Amino acid sequence: MTIAIIGGTGPQGQGLALRFARAGVRVALGSRDGIRGAEIAASLMKKLPEGSADIIGIDNIAATQAADEMVVLAVPFSAHNVTLESLRPHLAGKILVDIVVPLAANDPKLVEMPPEGSATEAAQALLGSDIPVIGALHNVSATTLNNLDWPINCDILICGNSLEARKKVMALVSKLDVQTYNAGNAQAARCIEAITPILIRQNISKAVPFTHAGIKIWAPDH
Amino acid sequence: MTIAIIGGTGPQGQGLALRFARAGVRVALGSRDGIRGAEIAASLMKKLPEGSADIIGIDNIAATQAADEMVVLAVPFSAHNVTLESLRPHLAGKILVDIVVPLAANDPKLVEMPPEGSATEAAQALLGSDIPVIGALHNVSATTLNNLDWPINCDILICGNSLEARKKVMALVSKLDVQTYNAGNAQAARCIEAITPILIRQNISKAVPFTHAGIKIWAPDH
Repeated sequence: MTIAIIGGTGPQGQGLALRFARAGVRVALGSRDGIRGAEIAASLMKKLPEGSADIIGIDNIAATQAADEMVVLAVPFSAHNVTLESLRPHLAGKILVDIVVPLAANDPKLVEMPPEGSATEAAQALLGSDIPVIGALHNVSATTLNNLDWPINCDILICGNSLEARKKVMALVSKLDVQTYNAGNAQAARCIEAITPILIRQNISKAVPFTHAGIKIWAPDH
Repeated sequence: MTIAIIGGTGPQGQGLALRFARAGVRVALGSRDGIRGAEIAASLMKKLPEGSADIIGIDNIAATQAADEMVVLAVPFSAHNVTLESLRPHLAGKILVDIVVPLAANDPKLVEMPPEGSATEAAQALLGSDIPVIGALHNVSATTLNNLDWPINCDILICGNSLEARKKVMALVSKLDVQTYNAGNAQAARCIEAITPILIRQNISKAVPFTHAGIKIWAPDH
């Protein structure tokens, strides 16, 4: 199985590449610059334990083409729509996994949602209903992902209009030893994406004992 | 110290009245019908251990007048604005604590936000900037609140445009033996209110071992 991570040279993309490769999922790490993608992929491979799947680095379009089915979008929000426009012709038959959070340009403790309501909804509107868009992995800290010795202290809330695609992404993300939850249709991304700046606020204000707070669905034990 | 709970005869209001009274905070339980308020208050008093503060039941306006500073709004969203209109002349110098979640009329797994973005923002717009509105206690299950033997499995995210009012509400809510977090200005209510239907979805789908799921800020232990 091969997934693509678009914008994979950023901190979130690198951390996800490491985690998925360690879990046995081959990663096509996409970058605007294929050479840079290849260099980052080579540096990541050195951090992986034996028996991990490969990370190959290429340009974003080649990475999309290399994916069996799942294409993870991990670019900054400023590049969200323009990147999707360039990928659109190559996404037929695939699922776009949107992890982008529209943080406000001048304050990471706030979101500035696009007119569609959320990044996930903007992606779905842009790609059209034939290509399912699933929102996922918005709330997990890049620092945590990149420290392979740390457990991931974050449940993963997964939303999107296609239940079938949601289930496939839940199965993929579960390989990272995290608890996933079906959060419903794409509108839930208005909530889920906006959890991230609330977590960043706790990290910045030192309201948590260590930074890199996550979110957990807390089930009672009675 | 006396707080008001408006719409206090509903399940959320009753549960909060019990929890606050047990924590030593006197509660003026407001109802549209003062007699019904008094009857419910009397029934709640019987559930409280010795040493608890009193719960008195009266009509919503008298309850608002009885509050030293904090007036908790716990009505269904359909009564949110009309109730606030009636309370407005009596709220000068007080803080309105809005716990209302705009659940969709036909599906508690969805929100239908008002044009202002959230119930908290709608309340702030309606009351004007002289009366601080703080969103809080949206995500805690009424069933949990009403079972005094159960710990509250939910962190409380608190937002509103006045930092001073936020801190006062955080101090009040902390009396319930819960962890509170400053979630920023009122816009954060668009996220926080919308967490509730995601939790309801997990309860309904049995994605959690017991129902009445809550939310937790999950700080790593490294």
